[in-house]
Amino acid sequence: MALNETPQDRKRVVVVGAGFGGLTCARKLSGHGLEIVLVDRNNYTLFQPLLYQVGTAALHREAIAEPVRHIIQDNRDIQFVLAEVQSVDLTQRQIATTVGAVAYDYLVLAAGAVPNFFGNKSIRETAFALKTLSDAGRLRNQILTVFEEASVETDEARREQFLTFVIVGGGPIGVELSGALAELVQNVMLKDYHDLRIGDVKIILLEAGDALMKPYPRSLQDYTLKRLQKLGVEVRLNVRVQGSDETGVVLADGSHIPAHTLVWGTGTRAAELTDHVDAPKGRGGLIQVGSDFSLLNHPEVFAIGDFADYMFEGSPLPGLAQPAIQGGEYVAEVITKVREQGQTIAPFSYWDKGTMAVIGRGAAIASVPRPQPYHADRHRGKEQRFLNLHGFPAWSAWLGLHLTYLGGFRNRMVAALDWSWDYVRNENQDRLITAVRQKEAESDDE
Amino acid sequence: MALNETPQDRKRVVVVGAGFGGLTCARKLSGHGLEIVLVDRNNYTLFQPLLYQVGTAALHREAIAEPVRHIIQDNRDIQFVLAEVQSVDLTQRQIATTVGAVAYDYLVLAAGAVPNFFGNKSIRETAFALKTLSDAGRLRNQILTVFEEASVETDEARREQFLTFVIVGGGPIGVELSGALAELVQNVMLKDYHDLRIGDVKIILLEAGDALMKPYPRSLQDYTLKRLQKLGVEVRLNVRVQGSDETGVVLADGSHIPAHTLVWGTGTRAAELTDHVDAPKGRGGLIQVGSDFSLLNHPEVFAIGDFADYMFEGSPLPGLAQPAIQGGEYVAEVITKVREQGQTIAPFSYWDKGTMAVIGRGAAIASVPRPQPYHADRHRGKEQRFLNLHGFPAWSAWLGLHLTYLGGFRNRMVAALDWSWDYVRNENQDRLITAVRQKEAESDDE
Repeated sequence: MALNETPQDRKRVVVVGAGFGGLTCARKLSGHGLEIVLVDRNNYTLFQPLLYQVGTAALHREAIAEPVRHIIQDNRDIQFVLAEVQSVDLTQRQIATTVGAVAYDYLVLAAGAVPNFFGNKSIRETAFALKTLSDAGRLRNQILTVFEEASVETDEARREQFLTFVIVGGGPIGVELSGALAELVQNVMLKDYHDLRIGDVKIILLEAGDALMKPYPRSLQDYTLKRLQKLGVEVRLNVRVQGSDETGVVLADGSHIPAHTLVWGTGTRAAELTDHVDAPKGRGGLIQVGSDFSLLNHPEVFAIGDFADYMFEGSPLPGLAQPAIQGGEYVAEVITKVREQGQTIAPFSYWDKGTMAVIGRGAAIASVPRPQPYHADRHRGKEQRFLNLHGFPAWSAWLGLHLTYLGGFRNRMVAALDWSWDYVRNENQDRLITAVRQKEAESDDE
Repeated sequence: MALNETPQDRKRVVVVGAGFGGLTCARKLSGHGLEIVLVDRNNYTLFQPLLYQVGTAALHREAIAEPVRHIIQDNRDIQFVLAEVQSVDLTQRQIATTVGAVAYDYLVLAAGAVPNFFGNKSIRETAFALKTLSDAGRLRNQILTVFEEASVETDEARREQFLTFVIVGGGPIGVELSGALAELVQNVMLKDYHDLRIGDVKIILLEAGDALMKPYPRSLQDYTLKRLQKLGVEVRLNVRVQGSDETGVVLADGSHIPAHTLVWGTGTRAAELTDHVDAPKGRGGLIQVGSDFSLLNHPEVFAIGDFADYMFEGSPLPGLAQPAIQGGEYVAEVITKVREQGQTIAPFSYWDKGTMAVIGRGAAIASVPRPQPYHADRHRGKEQRFLNLHGFPAWSAWLGLHLTYLGGFRNRMVAALDWSWDYVRNENQDRLITAVRQKEAESDDE
């Protein structure tokens, strides 16, 4: 079918990005007499919150990704197009992609976010990120390979470099990754490498602020710190990174940490596509949108998820799965009801379902709404509405929630199996080195 | 520890290759007061017989590969070295690797085989192979990507090219791959691509000889042919391939098949290392060895599996798992008993445990020994000693055997789950496109 012109018989909605927001929106739009074209550069949707598990070889890639076509198999009014979106022409109402132009009547931009290196070239070139499946594959290859390199390294200083991991950012990514890495070392590497001693490996977590897991209450922040330290992670607060090179990481105070692996787990910005959308941008290049997620002067164009700069009750929506999903659902309603049928709907209201993070097996933190009808208590203070958990209860909640969210029954089963087995055996089985690492890798993956 | 010189207190056996043969040999050598150094370019051992399942997205990579260090975790006298072996110095008794020289007292060469393109440059450059995990990943990406490309292709001729798959070789690889590919199309692609019709996809299996599955009895060859045709595979016998290019495949009779994907599933030769071993070679560069698998004039050096040219009862050992495993076990005995203790042991005798191949779900062929004590009947003719099965019984036997062989309990569970689910749902879930394809891919993987 011709993508470069919209169909005569019905309107076309083009959704850019098959993440939490875009996929939710496309499926909600289905069945309303519209033609939906879903465009993504990957043929799968990714469960980003578990990327660190792939990065530490606890889960195999397929367990946290699901083919888009499989998810929309029964939605015959959704066409999936595997392509990279290069630019958006708001006046001609079409997007330019690697497989040609795609015209739209409505456009939903859900291109997501990418790591923000804040213009630091040296870090961008040497640091590992954890945003895509390829990132996770590369990090996994790096982690596994440096242990191999260390095992045959006779120079002590170089060996120490190989076995030192610097992780920047005390948020969820940094905390969950350092915890998982510490457990990988304790439960697997010490068994796999007979000459390796626990003291040989250094995991250093750097945070610019004065506490880990900023949005969480103090008590959970302290628990997180203690748990990580118990796992052998060296946590350094109020530390800024200046740059990095092959030999290690340079801090703002000029000091140098010899390390072969630097993971950048702090700060994100809108995906590169934002530079090719002629619209007002907010912080990190996020597209500014109104209360109904549409662009100023372009009611037919929307931006959602962490590609959009949406203010709710005075503060920006966090770059999490829930705001993206809820935004996608709302935009589908705006298009089908408001734009198409002239109805009025209630203004968007973000329902904070809470957040959780895992530090290690049996150890997590969670801040979840108290079990009361939402409408009844949503205007009370957050501290009253939310229940703060830590330890095994939080971990169980985390496990249940993530298994439920994982796309696809089969994947859920595999993930459950991987996990339970992993949990019983303390094994990370998916530790295959599948390719060269990071910048060396021409290919989009590993 | 120093790899470039052998230890003082005990002898060192260096095993090159962690496949069926090398890994078996290393483990059998363990516990006899020797130091074993196992060298492989990958950190995992691969269950090659199921590569075609990964290539057709029926299994994820981790399900058919297991980390070597995990397998030898309890063998403290085995040291694994992740490195590529560049050459063997038979006089200095050391090998050159990418991590430096490794000296040996005994050397076991189990470097395996690679596809044999018989010097055809055009085929080597355009054809997909199915020998490594990277090969399987690349083929999977190719298969999934051409369907995406076809879905947005408006030119009919180009669309046909995208949807035509030419597979060369009527042996196990070609037969199992064409069957699995046909089922992928029927069970998955027709559901995933709403505009796709079954007639749009062409799977052409080319065999130079006059029958498929040569070593099997005629009845099973005929069954294989009928089943493949039933699955929609176009089988062409007595056809030779001349060359290939971007637009398709050129046959010996000058005719041209427009196709975007060519899979080379016929012929193997010894891994490239053979060119750097100064010893007599047989067909395909295989290292010539005596009845105890050792090299002529070098009783301390052995070659096994499909890296060795071993004649048993007048014919070469086939390049299968069993001969490699049995060879590895025997060489371990030769080293520990004959060389080290001067004992004499019975000459090597290959126990043919039979062969099987799967054509599709519920359809396979098998030629297995009749359930009688081996010694009692091994001198009777093969036709009497072997039981020929086809259809569901053969398939069940195949499934059971492969699940049993798959490395590691967890992997077995995951594979079983993948399969059973796959079988019930007729789904190939692991269809993620993880990178650019084939020659484009700089990386060793996908």
